[in-house]
Amino acid sequence: MSLDIATEYDRLVEVLRDKQPDAIVHFAEQRAAPYSMRTSATKRYTVDNNIRATHNLLVALVETGLDAALAHLGTMGVYGYGWSGSAPIPEGYLTVKLTTPDGELEREILHPANPGSVYHMTKTLDQLLFSFYAKNDGLRITDLHQGIVWGTQTDQTSRDERLINRFDYDGDYGTVLNRFLLQAAIGHPLTVHGTGGQTRAFIHIRDTVRCIEIAITAPMEDPSRVRVLNQMTETHRLLDLAKMIADAMGAEIAYLPNPRREAEENDLIVRNDQFLALGLNPTTLSADFNSATRARASFSQ
Amino acid sequence: MSLDIATEYDRLVEVLRDKQPDAIVHFAEQRAAPYSMRTSATKRYTVDNNIRATHNLLVALVETGLDAALAHLGTMGVYGYGWSGSAPIPEGYLTVKLTTPDGELEREILHPANPGSVYHMTKTLDQLLFSFYAKNDGLRITDLHQGIVWGTQTDQTSRDERLINRFDYDGDYGTVLNRFLLQAAIGHPLTVHGTGGQTRAFIHIRDTVRCIEIAITAPMEDPSRVRVLNQMTETHRLLDLAKMIADAMGAEIAYLPNPRREAEENDLIVRNDQFLALGLNPTTLSADFNSATRARASFSQ
Repeated sequence: MSLDIATEYDRLVEVLRDKQPDAIVHFAEQRAAPYSMRTSATKRYTVDNNIRATHNLLVALVETGLDAALAHLGTMGVYGYGWSGSAPIPEGYLTVKLTTPDGELEREILHPANPGSVYHMTKTLDQLLFSFYAKNDGLRITDLHQGIVWGTQTDQTSRDERLINRFDYDGDYGTVLNRFLLQAAIGHPLTVHGTGGQTRAFIHIRDTVRCIEIAITAPMEDPSRVRVLNQMTETHRLLDLAKMIADAMGAEIAYLPNPRREAEENDLIVRNDQFLALGLNPTTLSADFNSATRARASFSQ
Repeated sequence: MSLDIATEYDRLVEVLRDKQPDAIVHFAEQRAAPYSMRTSATKRYTVDNNIRATHNLLVALVETGLDAALAHLGTMGVYGYGWSGSAPIPEGYLTVKLTTPDGELEREILHPANPGSVYHMTKTLDQLLFSFYAKNDGLRITDLHQGIVWGTQTDQTSRDERLINRFDYDGDYGTVLNRFLLQAAIGHPLTVHGTGGQTRAFIHIRDTVRCIEIAITAPMEDPSRVRVLNQMTETHRLLDLAKMIADAMGAEIAYLPNPRREAEENDLIVRNDQFLALGLNPTTLSADFNSATRARASFSQ
């Protein structure tokens, strides 16, 4: 079924009433940071589409009274990079101290928003929508702050060729690790923007699928607030990744100017305790020693 | 000229190119909290209209390269009530301490969002839009976190009857103090929702106009972030206001159930140092001793 939840609200309500889903996985957003920054039209489309899609879904859940578990794909990019010094990035909520005339007060707040693109900005707006509808209407919402996805196959898709999903490797939709692997496979230099000192969070596509399953089945401790889970398993400096792949596959590295306003270098330590406690068993790049080579083989076929 | 900035983006760009304004006052949003909570349609309209209007304007400013001072009408309601204990509500930014492995870190953050309605929520989304476009594109933006407006006339409108603006006193668009005054004038009990222990911030409409003038003319210290000014001059408990007006005008008070999910009682101390430093000379209810009676006379005419 094809349904544009950003523009077909009445049909969305009808479908929810008809299907009575126990869980909803909301991926229906424009997903590319580079695309979102290209032109006035792409900026406007990203905001209009993403905010209306998310808000329509929330309003429809309130209107239908459905008690479905909602999982939404957010991004690690809402936190910003290097904002909290050497402190690890927490799972959505940050404990801070305020000074008051009656002494210090401790408060847990949604981590301050530090988006690096219009796309990332929409995910910080989504958070506030979730926060309001969880508190005001008791909707059960999990926001998955995902790292950069790599890999092409899940256990399900590898069963049959016809199940293989699209593979994006372009400058708009391709993610960095997949792009490096593809560049190496076709003999193109690996393109690093800036110094490559940017550290980012990663997750294998197989773990992404498992995380979503956990998010919609694991009971929530406190449904009056949106649950935030960091959907990532490891962090790497982009240059380290590029070097690893260049070494393994015999490729060159080309340094390009960085089009983003971001720090040249940053450390990144991220908490993902909740997913680990809920049974996630990560597929890491480092553990999967030969993955780059195997990937090459699969790309070259 | 009539122009829907939420839906007529191309015309908006044309108008900006044509007029080359030095300043833009952005009031083009659905403004009622009760309306925003009424039905699915009003929730959706409030979000769609307000976010698109604000975002279109920001994108149009970037596209045209206009260096105009933008002032937007926000609300005191973004802060929530009673969230920071006895600490005064700061002007947009809150200083907090984070614990890190290398000791405590001090950070200034946008005050955490605690909206009480869909309408208020849109103002918290606006803040994130402003924050991004100030940082990323250097737009000069002032967000005015306004209290509840009272009074009907400014120095300008009182010059001629034809200049008098609309006066809202209904349950959707009427603000509490004006509503009390009108209820008293027509012999209706003053309707207080809940205990009346809610403390709110107020400003006279004459000061509102002056604040906007200041916001678009006073240079910004740091244009890389949105300037937030608390556009209010005094705080009152709603019950105290009701009693004052009931005493002065001989009216009754009727207690009704509170339809909002909010604390029954709250204290409220608000900083407005910036406006005072920039020359605002408040018209306060307390100083203006006979205002209730004079207002009655003007309402009865």
